[in-house]
Amino acid sequence: MIKARRSVREIKEYVAGKNVEEVAASYGIDERSIVKLASNENCLGPSPMAVEAIREAARDAHVYPSVDAIELRQAIADRYSMPLGTVVCGAGMDGVLETLLRAYLESGDETIIPLPAFSYYEIVTRFCGATPVFCERRSDFSLDVDAVLEKVTGKTKFIFITSPNNPTGNITSIEDIRAVAEAVEAIVFVDEAYIDFAEDAKSALDLAREFDNVVVGRTMSKAWGLAGMRIGFGFIPEPAFKEYMKVATPFALSRISIAAALAALGDEDHYRRSVSTVRGERRFLTGHLPFKIFPSDANFLLMDTSPLTSGHVVSECMKRGIILRDCASFRGMGDRYVRITIGTHDQNLRLIDALKAIRETAVRGTEE
Amino acid sequence: MIKARRSVREIKEYVAGKNVEEVAASYGIDERSIVKLASNENCLGPSPMAVEAIREAARDAHVYPSVDAIELRQAIADRYSMPLGTVVCGAGMDGVLETLLRAYLESGDETIIPLPAFSYYEIVTRFCGATPVFCERRSDFSLDVDAVLEKVTGKTKFIFITSPNNPTGNITSIEDIRAVAEAVEAIVFVDEAYIDFAEDAKSALDLAREFDNVVVGRTMSKAWGLAGMRIGFGFIPEPAFKEYMKVATPFALSRISIAAALAALGDEDHYRRSVSTVRGERRFLTGHLPFKIFPSDANFLLMDTSPLTSGHVVSECMKRGIILRDCASFRGMGDRYVRITIGTHDQNLRLIDALKAIRETAVRGTEE
Repeated sequence: MIKARRSVREIKEYVAGKNVEEVAASYGIDERSIVKLASNENCLGPSPMAVEAIREAARDAHVYPSVDAIELRQAIADRYSMPLGTVVCGAGMDGVLETLLRAYLESGDETIIPLPAFSYYEIVTRFCGATPVFCERRSDFSLDVDAVLEKVTGKTKFIFITSPNNPTGNITSIEDIRAVAEAVEAIVFVDEAYIDFAEDAKSALDLAREFDNVVVGRTMSKAWGLAGMRIGFGFIPEPAFKEYMKVATPFALSRISIAAALAALGDEDHYRRSVSTVRGERRFLTGHLPFKIFPSDANFLLMDTSPLTSGHVVSECMKRGIILRDCASFRGMGDRYVRITIGTHDQNLRLIDALKAIRETAVRGTEE
Repeated sequence: MIKARRSVREIKEYVAGKNVEEVAASYGIDERSIVKLASNENCLGPSPMAVEAIREAARDAHVYPSVDAIELRQAIADRYSMPLGTVVCGAGMDGVLETLLRAYLESGDETIIPLPAFSYYEIVTRFCGATPVFCERRSDFSLDVDAVLEKVTGKTKFIFITSPNNPTGNITSIEDIRAVAEAVEAIVFVDEAYIDFAEDAKSALDLAREFDNVVVGRTMSKAWGLAGMRIGFGFIPEPAFKEYMKVATPFALSRISIAAALAALGDEDHYRRSVSTVRGERRFLTGHLPFKIFPSDANFLLMDTSPLTSGHVVSECMKRGIILRDCASFRGMGDRYVRITIGTHDQNLRLIDALKAIRETAVRGTEE
């Protein structure tokens, strides 16, 4: 058997959050009583208009979709006031990322990833044959522009900036992103999967209009409530658009996903309710959790579980039917951080009770 | 702006068949009266059980699917009696192909593509930075094993064999595939998208069980009636499976696509009806079309439009509301070939009438 590329052999598999079926089976819990706060899904569910559109489109499941999701790209261009020739789609933000990177990255190239970060940037960099170069965010997780720029070399092709950052939740200021974009020739990929939930934060969309090296990635998995449909989109400079389309997977989005996305974009009411619910519950949860919580502009919170380990807290929650995300699988995060998706008010109350009980049991255990 | 990789700049965009909306707009024809025989979709439509499953699953559109479509992979493993650890899924056969190739191909590598062939093999090879090496099938479009083996070098990583071949429709004998697999170290990718429609043809699945360098690709877009849902699958040797999973896009299949595929696999009755309808109509059409037709084991026919050009025939059909596929966009096919999807009996009758009229008008034009 021929061998895989060296850079691929070095990749560690992507670790996803546990799903309801897995936890139900492992812990012998009824699926219906399980609360999943691990994958940053929309706590209000999908737009009812999107559900209806899926049901309508089902009868044409045997017909290919448009090759490049043109009707969805047009609707996105209209919604965000961007030219159609800058709007791309893919199978989730991951799909957009993969497609763009394979147009540009090759063996010998480098990407810069400020940590902590979403792990897929590193995986895609490696399977394009390039080398990920890491730098650290500051202790409050804000972007250290100097630390980023120090890592830039002639080989740097991409710099990843996530805002709000995953898994830390904090926004990256538009001034910091601008400073990076101005200083480099590389493409600055601004991952705004969670930007909808931010209070008063400016999107990097204005920078994408101004600079020819700024790409903004978005998704319909979060505020738009369609994680199950795998729909990502991005705004990319016109010269890069042509290259993206050449390497894009034909028919990357299913016919039903396109129909769902079009309907969701037409339901601004559901979108606004999703965003305002998250903002309200974020304030509530932040004030009531019995561990240190970091300021968040996303639909999740980062929690420091000290003096307990993240693994202990996550597994104790799982026994109680609540799934959280242990951040130990994020490079450089150590074993004290847990990421919590903001749920409905009832789900959040249940989480607060569970975490209080876990904390008290542990403290009592230490005192005995 | 930084430049895309040289190999990407050389790629020509993938050309898909025209869709109903495009033709309706261009020719001012009512969408409902258009017959699309251009994309080899299932003429009976989707399984009613799959349609129902899509409608049921719609309410969970906000929840991520399983990261690796494990429940679908298990159902496929059962249906085809293959070990789970050899079954992979992707967004269509294209998705499976992309994922496998990016685990193995890098700059300097080569792939061998016998022509005529599906154009995406070449595109994926190029965006992985490798070089496609072409050889010719014989004049009857059968595989010329010696011509393939002559092209093998130390750099050859993949050999593509499509059976039935697209766009020619003929099966490749299992003995020929075996001869190639035995002679090379490269991975032989056997694309069996259309194998279900073949009469008495042996699948290369037995070879995949026997050889550690044979991969069989399949799709739910054809006989399983789910082209709109983007579901491909493949059977790959166990050593390659691990590498595939490392570079696979997380959540490559949507939740609704997984639900549809599971339901379709449970509807063997619809599958069998689809296959037998195609076989019967293939015999009927082959006997009644007024141009030379090549023997086909697929759900399409290759037609030689001589003395007319393919472009003329395709555009005349389009004016009559029938969409066919001009093979001029297939490398090395020239301008005399058209690919025709086998439709329902009524659609086929309409096609026969249209082609007879086009032929007669052209012959009369020449005589005048």
